[in-house]
Amino acid sequence: MITVLAVDVGGTNIRLAIVSDKGEILEAVSTPAHFSKRNISAEELLSTLASAFLDFLDNKANVAAIGIGFPGFFLGNSGVLSSSPNLPLLKEVDLGKAFSNTLELPVVVQNDALCAAIGEHRFGAGMGRPNMIHITLGTGIGAGLILNYLPYTGEDGTAMEFGHLCINPDDHARVCGCGNTGCLEAYASASAVVSQFEEKSGIRMEAKEIYQHSLNGNKQAKEILLTAGAYLGAAIAEVVKILDIRYITISGGLSGAWPILYPILMKHLNSRVIPPLKGKITVVRSQLDDNSGLLGAAALAFNINQDFLK
Amino acid sequence: MITVLAVDVGGTNIRLAIVSDKGEILEAVSTPAHFSKRNISAEELLSTLASAFLDFLDNKANVAAIGIGFPGFFLGNSGVLSSSPNLPLLKEVDLGKAFSNTLELPVVVQNDALCAAIGEHRFGAGMGRPNMIHITLGTGIGAGLILNYLPYTGEDGTAMEFGHLCINPDDHARVCGCGNTGCLEAYASASAVVSQFEEKSGIRMEAKEIYQHSLNGNKQAKEILLTAGAYLGAAIAEVVKILDIRYITISGGLSGAWPILYPILMKHLNSRVIPPLKGKITVVRSQLDDNSGLLGAAALAFNINQDFLK
Repeated sequence: MITVLAVDVGGTNIRLAIVSDKGEILEAVSTPAHFSKRNISAEELLSTLASAFLDFLDNKANVAAIGIGFPGFFLGNSGVLSSSPNLPLLKEVDLGKAFSNTLELPVVVQNDALCAAIGEHRFGAGMGRPNMIHITLGTGIGAGLILNYLPYTGEDGTAMEFGHLCINPDDHARVCGCGNTGCLEAYASASAVVSQFEEKSGIRMEAKEIYQHSLNGNKQAKEILLTAGAYLGAAIAEVVKILDIRYITISGGLSGAWPILYPILMKHLNSRVIPPLKGKITVVRSQLDDNSGLLGAAALAFNINQDFLK
Repeated sequence: MITVLAVDVGGTNIRLAIVSDKGEILEAVSTPAHFSKRNISAEELLSTLASAFLDFLDNKANVAAIGIGFPGFFLGNSGVLSSSPNLPLLKEVDLGKAFSNTLELPVVVQNDALCAAIGEHRFGAGMGRPNMIHITLGTGIGAGLILNYLPYTGEDGTAMEFGHLCINPDDHARVCGCGNTGCLEAYASASAVVSQFEEKSGIRMEAKEIYQHSLNGNKQAKEILLTAGAYLGAAIAEVVKILDIRYITISGGLSGAWPILYPILMKHLNSRVIPPLKGKITVVRSQLDDNSGLLGAAALAFNINQDFLK
């Protein structure tokens, strides 16, 4: 059986998996991302990742290609990282070529949020949909767009910066990691929920605990999640007004709070879209959850050479 | 020489022109749109428009097809009007087929704002651009998207409802014609500028007079135009975050206030986009002005049958 190596490079962990062409994860590991410091150089990054890949690939036959989801902006499908918001030293690095030279396999590298959309479209809740948007509610908020069955990158790889839509233009709005204020990510990412709860209660806990607290009647926890859901709905409405796309999937840690997020999200979404679209937008949870990015990277690896699929 | 009839159906006037395949307007008339009442039926609309077309076409040879820009939502390129915000009695009307039966010529009908984008792309400031957004600042605010050289309609013809992006989520924001509050159109359309000036000064005058007043030092006039420009810039930033498209053209009555609108628009646009895109977005005035919609309808008519171009 032909397989590929799929890699999901996150802020704290690198996940690696051997994946079949049916999207089955045959074997997987997670290794700490020692490069999760802002001042990593291109050389350090490449050697860290390459050795993680080689350790995992050791003695594995039938791996035909490597697909990598990486947190940064890529020039089309070239594998060239133009920049990465959290790793500012990396500029114009041809990750695809560098890994392919080291590992002697075809390599494809693409934005992590776009990989998640590709995975959800190929193997998850978006299967068969011509158009869809996939949103990841994690440490940050990412999104990817599938347009006429194909991933959409924009002119230079910076499309679907959904987490940085401005949903609160007030001067006193929360500050986002991007430097602006009032971005969706500053309210509705898992880390923003954690920060807001800590600011209000003085207690720092994980987003899933905050969700449990809200279910147990904690008003501060519930208010923060309801605000996150309302802003998410408002932001989706803006994207719908621009693209007229009616199918949205959501994954990531905070999607675990679905029973609280979903009703208020739909209420705000429907109150904001233009009249002919009210009630016509479908928003569903991911079927792949944390694996959408990994499986999207695998799908891209299988696509490098269509012969793999025969 | 082969020509087409291009039609731009507006709220108050219907403009008709004979256009060459080079985008030259060979002959044009403007006739009052007697149907500019909200309760017009499909039959009245069709007969009013058809007789306007026939009067103008009388004795004109070499008209190979008709292209019509109409204020409403169309199902793809089918010519079927699904609905029209300002003409609520019209639902699921096959305008293309109806006109083609009456006039015995091939007919294409498309959303007026998308026609303006097509016109600007084919004959104006967007010539040769793979991707662009065209914005019309008229009585309302419309926009059209060209993606990989092709007009983008969305799933059901309601893409690029740019005028209804929410740029002021405050509960006390201005009410828009769509029923929501805080839409861009409620601040930055020509009619919104007129209304705001009347509310502040008690005097009703046209947008171009308000612009003249602002040049002559009228503070209320200038403040309204500066706010319109700031909101326009903020709204363009949101679209750029989603689509990563870097070339924007603007036409319509209010674009006459360019010297006041442009600097503040660019300031707000650049402060709002994500860091890698700051300074990389180009916003220019239309080269076709009021004719972009008419020429886009003509371009569509020439495209009905590619043989016309030979």
